[in-house]
Amino acid sequence: MTMTAVDLGEKLRLIDALWSPKIVAQVNDTQVKLAKIQGTFDWHSHENEDELFLVLEGRLKLEFRDREVWLEKGQLCVVPRGVEHRPVAPEEVHIMLVEPAGTRNTGDEETERTVEAEWI
Amino acid sequence: MTMTAVDLGEKLRLIDALWSPKIVAQVNDTQVKLAKIQGTFDWHSHENEDELFLVLEGRLKLEFRDREVWLEKGQLCVVPRGVEHRPVAPEEVHIMLVEPAGTRNTGDEETERTVEAEWI
Repeated sequence: MTMTAVDLGEKLRLIDALWSPKIVAQVNDTQVKLAKIQGTFDWHSHENEDELFLVLEGRLKLEFRDREVWLEKGQLCVVPRGVEHRPVAPEEVHIMLVEPAGTRNTGDEETERTVEAEWI
Repeated sequence: MTMTAVDLGEKLRLIDALWSPKIVAQVNDTQVKLAKIQGTFDWHSHENEDELFLVLEGRLKLEFRDREVWLEKGQLCVVPRGVEHRPVAPEEVHIMLVEPAGTRNTGDEETERTVEAEWI
């Protein structure tokens, strides 16, 4: 996996399921994931993990309890640990996540939307 | 800094100096940096840090002692800790780095090309 070129567009084409981040790189204990999302996710927070969202294609809204942040292509936002948030994507959006390995997509709670991130 | 949109293009426009990575985000102990580079850097390695290179604009060659990896826009490569490498950019290239906070651009050795990464 390492010391070869990883093409983000190619990896994204391998992803079918929405809301199911896939791992494409690891840097020490931090993972880089790709995901396709559309719709509104559940409110959640991560007790110990900051989470970076970078938009690769489309537009993403990050909702917080007291504000919302729109991200366009080429824009990122870091959600600090402990802060409740939910991603909202009116249209399909392709994102890159940077977060500690083991970060759960639904945060501290396991729900029917919880998925185990796998490498692609 | 957090919970606002960070525009990578805007941040890149603030960078003048080549070979001087600037921090744009932190996720736990990991930092995301942007840099403009052109030319050939010094051989170096990082004893304890993996280092991710993602090309945002242009083409980058990562040279290793036993191979070379070309990265086009939208492609990344992780250089594992301890592996000697040097970035080579025939033309100016804009890159994103993901690496542990405190990772030195010249690796384990301090040289006249060592710079302290600052936030922009």
